[in-house]
Amino acid sequence: MDCLHEEEKWTRDEINKAQLVRLQNTVEQALKAPYYAKKLKEAKINASTIKSLDDLKKIPFTTKDDLRAGYPDAFLATPRSEIVRLHASSGTTGTPTVICHTQDDINSWADLMARCMYMVGIRREDSFQNMAGYGLFTGGLGIHYGAERLGCMTIPAGAGNTRRQLKFIQDFKVKAVHILPSYALHIGEKLKEDGFDPRELPAKIALIGAEPHTEEARQRIEHLLGLRAFNSYGLSEMNGPGVAFECIAQNGLHVWEDAYIVEIIDPKTLEPVKDGEIGELVFTTLCRKGMPILRYRTRDLSRFINGSCVCGREHRRIDRILGRSDDMLIIKGCNFYPMQVEQVLLSFPQVGQNYVLELIKEGSIDQLQVKVEINPAFFEEEKKEDMRVLHQLQRNIAERLKDELLFTPKVDLVEANSLPKSEGKAIRVVDKRKD
Amino acid sequence: MDCLHEEEKWTRDEINKAQLVRLQNTVEQALKAPYYAKKLKEAKINASTIKSLDDLKKIPFTTKDDLRAGYPDAFLATPRSEIVRLHASSGTTGTPTVICHTQDDINSWADLMARCMYMVGIRREDSFQNMAGYGLFTGGLGIHYGAERLGCMTIPAGAGNTRRQLKFIQDFKVKAVHILPSYALHIGEKLKEDGFDPRELPAKIALIGAEPHTEEARQRIEHLLGLRAFNSYGLSEMNGPGVAFECIAQNGLHVWEDAYIVEIIDPKTLEPVKDGEIGELVFTTLCRKGMPILRYRTRDLSRFINGSCVCGREHRRIDRILGRSDDMLIIKGCNFYPMQVEQVLLSFPQVGQNYVLELIKEGSIDQLQVKVEINPAFFEEEKKEDMRVLHQLQRNIAERLKDELLFTPKVDLVEANSLPKSEGKAIRVVDKRKD
Repeated sequence: MDCLHEEEKWTRDEINKAQLVRLQNTVEQALKAPYYAKKLKEAKINASTIKSLDDLKKIPFTTKDDLRAGYPDAFLATPRSEIVRLHASSGTTGTPTVICHTQDDINSWADLMARCMYMVGIRREDSFQNMAGYGLFTGGLGIHYGAERLGCMTIPAGAGNTRRQLKFIQDFKVKAVHILPSYALHIGEKLKEDGFDPRELPAKIALIGAEPHTEEARQRIEHLLGLRAFNSYGLSEMNGPGVAFECIAQNGLHVWEDAYIVEIIDPKTLEPVKDGEIGELVFTTLCRKGMPILRYRTRDLSRFINGSCVCGREHRRIDRILGRSDDMLIIKGCNFYPMQVEQVLLSFPQVGQNYVLELIKEGSIDQLQVKVEINPAFFEEEKKEDMRVLHQLQRNIAERLKDELLFTPKVDLVEANSLPKSEGKAIRVVDKRKD
Repeated sequence: MDCLHEEEKWTRDEINKAQLVRLQNTVEQALKAPYYAKKLKEAKINASTIKSLDDLKKIPFTTKDDLRAGYPDAFLATPRSEIVRLHASSGTTGTPTVICHTQDDINSWADLMARCMYMVGIRREDSFQNMAGYGLFTGGLGIHYGAERLGCMTIPAGAGNTRRQLKFIQDFKVKAVHILPSYALHIGEKLKEDGFDPRELPAKIALIGAEPHTEEARQRIEHLLGLRAFNSYGLSEMNGPGVAFECIAQNGLHVWEDAYIVEIIDPKTLEPVKDGEIGELVFTTLCRKGMPILRYRTRDLSRFINGSCVCGREHRRIDRILGRSDDMLIIKGCNFYPMQVEQVLLSFPQVGQNYVLELIKEGSIDQLQVKVEINPAFFEEEKKEDMRVLHQLQRNIAERLKDELLFTPKVDLVEANSLPKSEGKAIRVVDKRKD
């Protein structure tokens, strides 16, 4: 395995052993923070409570509300004089979520990020352009420090100024970029409008993240720009980018388990989901001194991808982010998330760009009605033939949805452009049960 | 002397000795760059040409146009694989000015910047908020790396979002900020409007730069915000911030002569000006490997401040930036710059906010007519008495201008708000000679 760090080659056993020691150290460190001193004392937990990784379950969860309530100091586990960096979530107004880092924290974060970049083929002799905004947002400085750590010629282009971005990519033969998925699509389409083939740009690798996106969006970016796009996952509470990252296999994101313990729980019962089932990601830092966080509920939904990865790394893989736990729906006793429906729908080439999930009443029972536009390109034959094909498609979609959701929703195929378009963020779920 | 680096304590003799060795090394390094290989060969210069610091004069100047013509590669003195950072001047459209740094370059830049911050009283246990934009602009990452190097809790707030800026300054007891002078005034005025005394903010030190500003503007910032503001000078061609910086004495900016050779030349004759006279700043890098630059004509105007500084540092001091060499005017055989006139005018409390310099013909001879608004607060007495006072003021201003410019301009005192106001950048010079 060609990798930057020995830790990437660790076997499951080596990972588990290191995690146990690091978890004990982390609990000890966390006890220095006022919040955990109180919380862990109440739960009668200290480092010696943690005799196996299974004992992690004894530790209470930490939520975003806890972080907010602890603003600005309650999670600090070192004197403020040891802190060299503060980041904050953009979030809504009101109390921000703030994370403080020591120099060691910054170094280990830069190492993790450099490891991700090396894993997808970026080398020190390459030029790298960071097209994400800098400042308190961790996608700027987080990626920047990783690229510099790897030794790339790092161009801190920031967001915007597309013309200059493209000039630098060409003039400095930029091999890899960090870019928001929506900005990547925007740039590609703009170049095509200007009569330039975006595939001729020298960039051959894109790190994409910070926005949830589907596999279909990734493939469209890869096709449009003639590069390979790798999914980056992170959140400021866990440093930022560099928590989990896709390898060359592009089949799930390896969580760096030497630095984090990952759990996936049912957001209602708070119990672990079965392997491969969707649930809420929960992370525990293993290497952080300034602000260690135990069992942080991310509200991001994913699932473990089982089996061994062709890249050889045994660090567990998670699926791309499938939505937010706040989005969960329950129909006929089955929990599911809108992104699961989207995944099924967009796997059919005959399906168009727009769809909507309506929650309706059938008598006294809740039901899901999926309205989905069809792609006119697939229906150019005679009407009679079309009707047969459409009915078959409708049945196929309903069956695949049943496999995914464990109940059979109603599926309505509708004409292209017949569903309401929204300005900005699409409205995908409409609750009609109270009408 | 309480300082971060031994180099700050160097005597003149130690500075000169180090400069000679470093200049020889820099010439040798520069010869690896295609541009200098050609240019220095033509001028028959190599490291052995430099036998004393006086031999610097044999080296041709480098201009911004040279840098542009050499874009993107001609000034690179190391293989691109050694480069870890690229910065670019914002500048106008067209070819940008691009500077490339090795890891050593970035480290020595961070050291210089940390030294500036320590010099004005910032310590590792302090919180520091960087309120300048990040990205390709060197005021973001340049200051950031210095603050982190010093070990401050560095808040990469970036530009804008005033409400959050103020929240962080208060909640994290921010002792020092980096801020544009105009933004500092804006924030102060806004707080006052909201009924809050900006002097109650915990920030007690401001680094101000990136915009030329007068001593009067600095004093207004200090008074408004209840802090001490220190003038920061740098330009991306010489790394960025950290080239010259005010010490506690606030009487000129010390150029870090262990890292730069500074010259001041007459932009017309290209000869050194006499000590204390205004001219164009010219810098030579002494510690840069990626892109050494020899005798760079900055087009920024300043003058040496002679005598020893009370802080004890022997690194030469320059005055605040007095304008751009492109602004130079010639009247009656005397060269001068509009900023010289402004300095004289604003030193009179009776003078208002607006003034204009008109270039006129008196017969066949060029003359300067200074129209300046008076401050009505100073003229509340009876008319007759006023006239006497006004005539005396007019004579005093004319005399002080003569001392500064070496010729006597015409001075017109006009009523407040009678001169044309401009939207945006003020128009201070009007050439009426061709009317």
